[in-house]
Amino acid sequence: MSDSLQPNDDPGLGEAPIPKAVVGRLSLYLRELQRLVREGHDTISSSQLGDSLGFSDAQVRKDLANFGQFGHPGVGYRCDQLIAKVKQILGTDRSWPVALVGIGNLGRALLRYRGFEEQGFRVVAAFDVDPAIVGRRVEGLSVQHLDSLTEVVAQESIRLAILAVPAAQARGVAEKLVAAGIEGVLNFAPVTLSLPSRIRVHGVDLAIELEQLAFAVVNPAQKT
Amino acid sequence: MSDSLQPNDDPGLGEAPIPKAVVGRLSLYLRELQRLVREGHDTISSSQLGDSLGFSDAQVRKDLANFGQFGHPGVGYRCDQLIAKVKQILGTDRSWPVALVGIGNLGRALLRYRGFEEQGFRVVAAFDVDPAIVGRRVEGLSVQHLDSLTEVVAQESIRLAILAVPAAQARGVAEKLVAAGIEGVLNFAPVTLSLPSRIRVHGVDLAIELEQLAFAVVNPAQKT
Repeated sequence: MSDSLQPNDDPGLGEAPIPKAVVGRLSLYLRELQRLVREGHDTISSSQLGDSLGFSDAQVRKDLANFGQFGHPGVGYRCDQLIAKVKQILGTDRSWPVALVGIGNLGRALLRYRGFEEQGFRVVAAFDVDPAIVGRRVEGLSVQHLDSLTEVVAQESIRLAILAVPAAQARGVAEKLVAAGIEGVLNFAPVTLSLPSRIRVHGVDLAIELEQLAFAVVNPAQKT
Repeated sequence: MSDSLQPNDDPGLGEAPIPKAVVGRLSLYLRELQRLVREGHDTISSSQLGDSLGFSDAQVRKDLANFGQFGHPGVGYRCDQLIAKVKQILGTDRSWPVALVGIGNLGRALLRYRGFEEQGFRVVAAFDVDPAIVGRRVEGLSVQHLDSLTEVVAQESIRLAILAVPAAQARGVAEKLVAAGIEGVLNFAPVTLSLPSRIRVHGVDLAIELEQLAFAVVNPAQKT
């Protein structure tokens, strides 16, 4: 909760790497805690937090113990304290300016998506190459040509980009993102990107989500 | 590859549950294999398949060995055979009719998203409750009122639904999906759904993807 925490500061994770699954569950805990606060709760027990997400209370306590001791005996967790701590761990205790590339149907929906800003992500620049789109205002942002990417990324200190271009253009545009200094790419194109290992890429292939769901429906006995 | 394989057939997975991470990687293998076939490749080795995805060849062989023996000594995998097998395992060797609920900005983008149909998912019914939207044609589908959900789900044998309604409506609409006989829900609303355990729910919270990316960028030494 320190105001002086800079994006490069170590949030105190120590030496041991945190398993990806734990980091994934932190986001789920955060969403549930935010919902509880909206509903007027001040405190919550590990079993209450686990129940609504389908995890055991032991799992919740073990996950959170990775990052220190937050529980209060007889009280449970204070929601606001735990929210602040989880945000600090995830790095969302600050605002992240984000670039969005590709202002087609998906890009427009993403520009309108309120969920990003609620979690500290603000799309501050929108890019495309289509002359029919460049220069137009969409959701309060003037769409810029991809040629100005490097300049804008530096000006706005942008580290994260959302890639919402068609599959055929995704790899080429991703390389431009890297050349412009982007460190993390959220890729909506159904293509695997091969970028330098220092660049973090998370792929959001919406059909993969349906595929995984189809597997779970066809295999009800499988652990998914 | 049997034409007689029905949605409820056991695709031969045997007794042992397949870890969720393996099922997730199957989708990645499938995408990569589909790309290779488009580029004219007939066969691929486990190390080639792993390289482009950032997995070791041992990992690829171990994952695929869960489902039988597909490799050919000295040749590697035949792409078309492996694609067919992975689709059979995932359950996407058939076409899945899908219902889409919520025809706002995100719903419209999803209706236009070509990636679903490429993988065997066809949105056959679109629902909303807004009188300004119900009855209009969007991407070739006439938007129907949510009140006709149960009837349409039965008529079209729909088992999967995509939920793209605002957060405040998500839980109520999800219960209607379950009552209508839907077995799997792909949830885009930033809300955790608590549905009966027989219902499979996959949440796509787009801000979570950015959160996880932010964590990875702030913690470059962490395994993510």
